[in-house]
Amino acid sequence: MIFKVKKYDVHASEPLILLDSEDCIKLGVKEGDRVMISGERSTIALAFHSEDMVEPGTAIIPTSILEKTGVGKDGTVEIIFTHPPESVRFIRKKMDGEKLSKDEINDIVRDILENRLSRIEISAWLTALYINGMDIDEIADFTLAIANTGDIIEFNRKPVFDFHSLGGVPGNKITPIVVSIVAAVGITIPKTSSRAISSACGTSDFVETFCDVEIPASRLMSIVEDVGGVFSWGGSMNLAPVDDMVIKIEHPLGINPRAQMLASIMSKKVAIGSTHLLVDIPTGAGTKVPTLEAAKGYARDLMSLGEKIGIHVECAITYADQPIGNAIGPNLEARECISILEGSNHPASVVEKALECAGIILEMAGMTNGMAKAKEILESGEAHKKFMEIVVAQGGDPNLKSTDLQPGKYSFDLVSSNSGYVHAIYNKEIVNTAKIAGSPSDKGAGLFLYKKKGQRVEAGEKLLTIYAESEVKLKRAKEYIMSNNPFDIEGMLIKRVSDIKLR
Amino acid sequence: MIFKVKKYDVHASEPLILLDSEDCIKLGVKEGDRVMISGERSTIALAFHSEDMVEPGTAIIPTSILEKTGVGKDGTVEIIFTHPPESVRFIRKKMDGEKLSKDEINDIVRDILENRLSRIEISAWLTALYINGMDIDEIADFTLAIANTGDIIEFNRKPVFDFHSLGGVPGNKITPIVVSIVAAVGITIPKTSSRAISSACGTSDFVETFCDVEIPASRLMSIVEDVGGVFSWGGSMNLAPVDDMVIKIEHPLGINPRAQMLASIMSKKVAIGSTHLLVDIPTGAGTKVPTLEAAKGYARDLMSLGEKIGIHVECAITYADQPIGNAIGPNLEARECISILEGSNHPASVVEKALECAGIILEMAGMTNGMAKAKEILESGEAHKKFMEIVVAQGGDPNLKSTDLQPGKYSFDLVSSNSGYVHAIYNKEIVNTAKIAGSPSDKGAGLFLYKKKGQRVEAGEKLLTIYAESEVKLKRAKEYIMSNNPFDIEGMLIKRVSDIKLR
Repeated sequence: MIFKVKKYDVHASEPLILLDSEDCIKLGVKEGDRVMISGERSTIALAFHSEDMVEPGTAIIPTSILEKTGVGKDGTVEIIFTHPPESVRFIRKKMDGEKLSKDEINDIVRDILENRLSRIEISAWLTALYINGMDIDEIADFTLAIANTGDIIEFNRKPVFDFHSLGGVPGNKITPIVVSIVAAVGITIPKTSSRAISSACGTSDFVETFCDVEIPASRLMSIVEDVGGVFSWGGSMNLAPVDDMVIKIEHPLGINPRAQMLASIMSKKVAIGSTHLLVDIPTGAGTKVPTLEAAKGYARDLMSLGEKIGIHVECAITYADQPIGNAIGPNLEARECISILEGSNHPASVVEKALECAGIILEMAGMTNGMAKAKEILESGEAHKKFMEIVVAQGGDPNLKSTDLQPGKYSFDLVSSNSGYVHAIYNKEIVNTAKIAGSPSDKGAGLFLYKKKGQRVEAGEKLLTIYAESEVKLKRAKEYIMSNNPFDIEGMLIKRVSDIKLR
Repeated sequence: MIFKVKKYDVHASEPLILLDSEDCIKLGVKEGDRVMISGERSTIALAFHSEDMVEPGTAIIPTSILEKTGVGKDGTVEIIFTHPPESVRFIRKKMDGEKLSKDEINDIVRDILENRLSRIEISAWLTALYINGMDIDEIADFTLAIANTGDIIEFNRKPVFDFHSLGGVPGNKITPIVVSIVAAVGITIPKTSSRAISSACGTSDFVETFCDVEIPASRLMSIVEDVGGVFSWGGSMNLAPVDDMVIKIEHPLGINPRAQMLASIMSKKVAIGSTHLLVDIPTGAGTKVPTLEAAKGYARDLMSLGEKIGIHVECAITYADQPIGNAIGPNLEARECISILEGSNHPASVVEKALECAGIILEMAGMTNGMAKAKEILESGEAHKKFMEIVVAQGGDPNLKSTDLQPGKYSFDLVSSNSGYVHAIYNKEIVNTAKIAGSPSDKGAGLFLYKKKGQRVEAGEKLLTIYAESEVKLKRAKEYIMSNNPFDIEGMLIKRVSDIKLR
């Protein structure tokens, strides 16, 4: 049927058009069905109907679709019913608990990428994956299918090492330290990181306080060939782009099916050409991986998937019951990270975790006594030298000092109203406070912790300082922390004191 | 945060608003998250972000939402992040294969009705139902929860009988015959039917060719109290309205989870106050229920669910390997249906099916020899008398004759190019041809079949006539049937001849 076009300049994340109800009946189109729209060219959209908002014979079509199709000579388009893509059948197959072939998985992934599957269908796919899962062969096919939706980078330097953290623990600023140590001995490590998704500050969020992180693939390749390492933002390259589309559906459901999670991590490693990978699995209450048992399960999955797709994987299960180090938030984390590269031994938890991880990578590359070697490289200043090479290659200041990075000018000190020992620090409340204070978009926003688990606290002592760039946000963060205290201070007697007064 | 409002006058089936990406970060809102919008009043919407279509500080909000909220004095609204409703957690519980409590099921159903669950979440819910299912207690709770989303009708006359067909076979025009026979002996049978969903012609689609079917609850109650029966459109009352919202998500997925299907059928019976129900289960190739085994499974499910919720259910498993009778399409089916009530014994398949079903209902009401009794009522003219009472009560012509109903003026005869026996008639191709010819919205559109399964056909004999109200649609239907022949004619030799030439 031929339709007059009414343009509208708003688009949702799906290609939706609106038709009169009677017209839908004539087209044989039910709500949510696919239609082919043809002007000068054709595209597929989902049709919705309205009793009263659309004139019969008229289609309301978003600009984004009209840009793809154009319109006919007389300003009209042709719209016809179109069957769902075959991949809908493969989704139903997974709903029925069947194993999918490589081609079927490829079809689903490609149809998500090319917007041929609706959010309803992608939701059903993820739910089926969550419930019925995939075996390791399917996950391997799935990983490669996702990797192939974007660019695949190949370095001249081989082997190519990578480092990945499952995340979920605040203050984990070790990536630039690990990359610098490893690259300092000549190992190739093109590390791409993410920005915060649900956390207070992703690696890219704090690295961008002192150098560029939005580095396209060609520049990344030349930096890596040149200095051996990089710490850039993965989102600035076209690596496994379908992954970002899926996250938008996973997020409202609050699920992350195992197959999707494994394929999502590993597809990016395939895309960046990794041959060796160390995965940090932060484990502890309030993280994604609450128990050692769960951590071992992830490690097993990642290692066997690596074997299938030709990447040598090792895992580091790390302590994550409380924040790593003292600083949370972009400038504060950058300052803490750089100060360690400059020679500070503090905070010990950050130094130790970075050296352990770097040490494992050195051993994966064939060296012995990895951790001792990593320590040597850090203490000799070689790591700092390599760090500065990378920073400069990423457009940073050659005279960068940790002290260049300062927290926001508005601050609030949380003090303890009683004496005792820090029994627990709750990651969730720490993260929320930092976010409410403005992290990661306000670079000076965040927290600095003076006390960690097990330490003695006297009444009136500072527990942490909240920093913000605006008075309003500081006030909100202060209000939040007053009713969601992240510190649990216990006395010598078995008695919990949970109210903390302001100074 | 306070936002300026940019109105737009298009709405999708979900309440969506569009915000600038940076503003989303400030609000802590990710794509698809819920926000509370407050003007003079408040409502919940889903937030999507855009890099370049929305000015920072502005929210693009559809008129339908602004009508609910109004705007503040200065034309602004406040938008804040809102957590998903608790029912999302119950959906995840079903994804994890757990049994849901009555309250949890009620919460999910109510949140679907009140638009608090997004299409992504409803899709996950249906997928989880499809894969993990519900036990009979959960289905009973689910049925009552769905019924309670709309009106519950209570008749003074008791018991209240009902008749339901699972559908899926074309030409099934027995409902007015069954209702008329049953009501003629004084049994109360307030039968509500549907319009075509995927079929060529629903009961309401052909009944409305000779009387009103859009009958609100109050009028339906007075008609039933008066004449004992009705055959109206269920959609004109507010019966289990949440069901229609769910169908819109099921349809693109091509699934109908057993729990949802059972609850959907039975909730409408609860809403209309049924105490006794006969379910027709058309069984055969090309229907929803392909085998006797599957039909028995449905029967078992419906009967045990009926027991749980206090409705006495019996089932009739009926033959559905080919269309019922000769006519498909609104006027054609109405003509065939009324002619039987007027005294025609033809077509025998329709007469027999109607008498069998009416007979079972008479026996459920305590009579003996139900089918013989039903035959007597039909042949004596009592059924026709009751039929006319109902037709007149529904606003039809008191002088209605079957011959008043005529097919469209454009027609095409499909003839057999060879001699043999009708080996099969494919329901799907019959339905599609009728739909392409314009059924059910063009009342004269449809098919008339001259030959049924097992009959002898000579080369050159007519197999069927396609009728349409427009030349264009006739042409399309003719093109379709020429390449999708619904008749399979086999000779005496084991040899299939599948091409049929035009006369």
